[in-house]
Amino acid sequence: VRARIVAVGSELLTPFHVDTNSLAITERLNDIGCQVVGKAVVGDDVVEIRRLVEAAIGAVEVLVVTGGLGPTEDDVTREAVAHALGLPLEIEEAIVDRIRRRFAMRGLAMPEINRRQAMVPRGAYVLENANGTAPGLCVEREGTLMVLLPGPPREMTPMLEAVIRDRLAPASGGMTLARRVVKVAGMTESDVDTVAQPVYGRWTSAGVPIETTILATLGQIELHLTARAADRAEADRALGTAASELQAVLGHAVISVDGRSLEAVVGDLLRAAFWRVAVAESCTGGLLTSRLTDVPGSSDYVDRAAVCYSNRAKTAWLGVPSTLIAEHGAVSEAVARAMAEGVRAEAGTEVGIGVTGIAGPGGGSAEKPVGTVAIAVVSDRETRVRTFRFVGAREQVKDQAVRAALNLVRRMLLGV
Amino acid sequence: VRARIVAVGSELLTPFHVDTNSLAITERLNDIGCQVVGKAVVGDDVVEIRRLVEAAIGAVEVLVVTGGLGPTEDDVTREAVAHALGLPLEIEEAIVDRIRRRFAMRGLAMPEINRRQAMVPRGAYVLENANGTAPGLCVEREGTLMVLLPGPPREMTPMLEAVIRDRLAPASGGMTLARRVVKVAGMTESDVDTVAQPVYGRWTSAGVPIETTILATLGQIELHLTARAADRAEADRALGTAASELQAVLGHAVISVDGRSLEAVVGDLLRAAFWRVAVAESCTGGLLTSRLTDVPGSSDYVDRAAVCYSNRAKTAWLGVPSTLIAEHGAVSEAVARAMAEGVRAEAGTEVGIGVTGIAGPGGGSAEKPVGTVAIAVVSDRETRVRTFRFVGAREQVKDQAVRAALNLVRRMLLGV
Repeated sequence: VRARIVAVGSELLTPFHVDTNSLAITERLNDIGCQVVGKAVVGDDVVEIRRLVEAAIGAVEVLVVTGGLGPTEDDVTREAVAHALGLPLEIEEAIVDRIRRRFAMRGLAMPEINRRQAMVPRGAYVLENANGTAPGLCVEREGTLMVLLPGPPREMTPMLEAVIRDRLAPASGGMTLARRVVKVAGMTESDVDTVAQPVYGRWTSAGVPIETTILATLGQIELHLTARAADRAEADRALGTAASELQAVLGHAVISVDGRSLEAVVGDLLRAAFWRVAVAESCTGGLLTSRLTDVPGSSDYVDRAAVCYSNRAKTAWLGVPSTLIAEHGAVSEAVARAMAEGVRAEAGTEVGIGVTGIAGPGGGSAEKPVGTVAIAVVSDRETRVRTFRFVGAREQVKDQAVRAALNLVRRMLLGV
Repeated sequence: VRARIVAVGSELLTPFHVDTNSLAITERLNDIGCQVVGKAVVGDDVVEIRRLVEAAIGAVEVLVVTGGLGPTEDDVTREAVAHALGLPLEIEEAIVDRIRRRFAMRGLAMPEINRRQAMVPRGAYVLENANGTAPGLCVEREGTLMVLLPGPPREMTPMLEAVIRDRLAPASGGMTLARRVVKVAGMTESDVDTVAQPVYGRWTSAGVPIETTILATLGQIELHLTARAADRAEADRALGTAASELQAVLGHAVISVDGRSLEAVVGDLLRAAFWRVAVAESCTGGLLTSRLTDVPGSSDYVDRAAVCYSNRAKTAWLGVPSTLIAEHGAVSEAVARAMAEGVRAEAGTEVGIGVTGIAGPGGGSAEKPVGTVAIAVVSDRETRVRTFRFVGAREQVKDQAVRAALNLVRRMLLGV
């Protein structure tokens, strides 16, 4: 089964935005053995969209179009597809009612222009949108299934899942692609590859062949494993074995073999130990606690955090002696440790984390350049303190410091 | 002048890679007034590439193709273009010599397969590649200039510069495209469009025509304005006037007319007033403070923040009376206000912000469903408190609450 993907949106033709929806769509299509053979981006332009729809009919089995389903004049995907298929567009009152109820839930009246979103090419199948007003549409012609989805990922993703489950998977008949993501922290990309390549290099010619791609983001390496097999269970078995082989060579640098995020792993470990955590942040500005609390249910183990930009706050809230700051500097292992101990004592939690550093662009010195970050993790059993030198702009330094802190907590909780 | 861009490479059809070359190409084409009207990605597939080349001939004035010029069997861009144009491919010995010299410089013999890179569709113009072995090619047909460039950015970029300088800029007649982003908060996309469309609708036929696109993300609407004019100054002048017209109808819902983020605007306002801010967050888990401190230099006006997941922390650090929590509930305007007042008093800052809510997925009730967030902003002059009902998953609720809080601060600082 071959697919094309079209992303609609004039902003995607500027120097500022790339189409990223197609990545998630490709992943899910691959899951059911459907290969993406082409992608396109067009503006909110009825002629161009129509041209791409016409070119796909009869040429590929699946065409996924995202975007251009909003309520405004420049949302023209519905019109373009109706023109390409020679179908009239009709307002479906059931959809109007659904949109009206969505607005009513927020105490608002539906603006008249939102009626546009209820226009359906005659005979098309309507996909409900649980997270927005724009319904999706499915329509088939000459063996090509056209799937129109809204652009915002939050709306698009669950609708895509539904189409794949209800329409595409049953028709896919056989081979499946299954994926696993192995996440690694605290190693460079080349170090991971040096250790892992001899292992994953063998998999391409295995009974169930597995392709491996390494993806490096700041402070985290991901190994994406893709297995192709006759059924899901067989592919999953092969991926399970493969993940174990990687874990055997990479050791405790492996965060997770099931795609779980670092903050979710830390949360699971805290929950398992019945421990709660308190955080004292300076240069990360609240991002560490925000990341910890992105995990649903994290209120079970996150008690509180102090974001202390001023030294006064460090002294008043955390009891960090001003003499300690004067002696070692605000960015120092001594202060990171005092912050972690202070917030832990304040909150009465089992674990305390302290982060202090220079996110930049200002504030660096020869001795402590921008990117210098001291991190301390304390419990009643032990204290771990480390100083890092991160490179990159302000937001990158914050991000790397958060990952390093979470990884330090993870390793302490594991005792490794 | 209209352009299309095609990126060739099977890796660009996996879930892991996006085409980013097209962003740099778009930027340079826009500089000379050339608008990108479509982009495509295809694999190393001679039939698909040929199809895209044929579709572009006569339809657009410029077609830029990147990738597929390497020496291996799967690099088929040259063949595809030659087929599309019905031209024979001929080896140019001058190119072979150049490639051979490149290898010799590194003390290597040229592998025989690299002769493929010297194949040129008869009559095409050869673009030298200072950073690699693959030469680029230019060929014109029916008013369409086709430019073939290698994929690696280090090779592609200088060759693109050369083509633009030598071939495209002289033919462009000096038009330029300039852009502006107008950001709006606290209005729905439909409301913005209802008010703004009568204004921007007139611009398309103005002396300096301006195209407008509306981009809606959670809690923020962006209007992207693109002006086409003979020179940069004229385009910028027209955009300045246009931005003022939008501001006149949208009023204080406009955050910025120069692309500045909401947190940067809030920072500028705080700095201008010589005011500092302290934050008390619950459901946003530190994200509000992290966003505020993403702005370089924010340590000038951010003093501290308390992230209080436990009621105990709200009482101990912020002095929120436990009776108040018992009476109104932790998620209430009374508690948001007490948090804002408490942290402001603790820190001795001019402004205090309090945010308390239910990010979900758990914790909701019939009276206070998931997404309910109370936000208070206090100064010595006034107190503003509001309750919002956001929809979406945990991270979306956090994000919308952060934007709403920042917008509330912005409006209070502006006194509107």
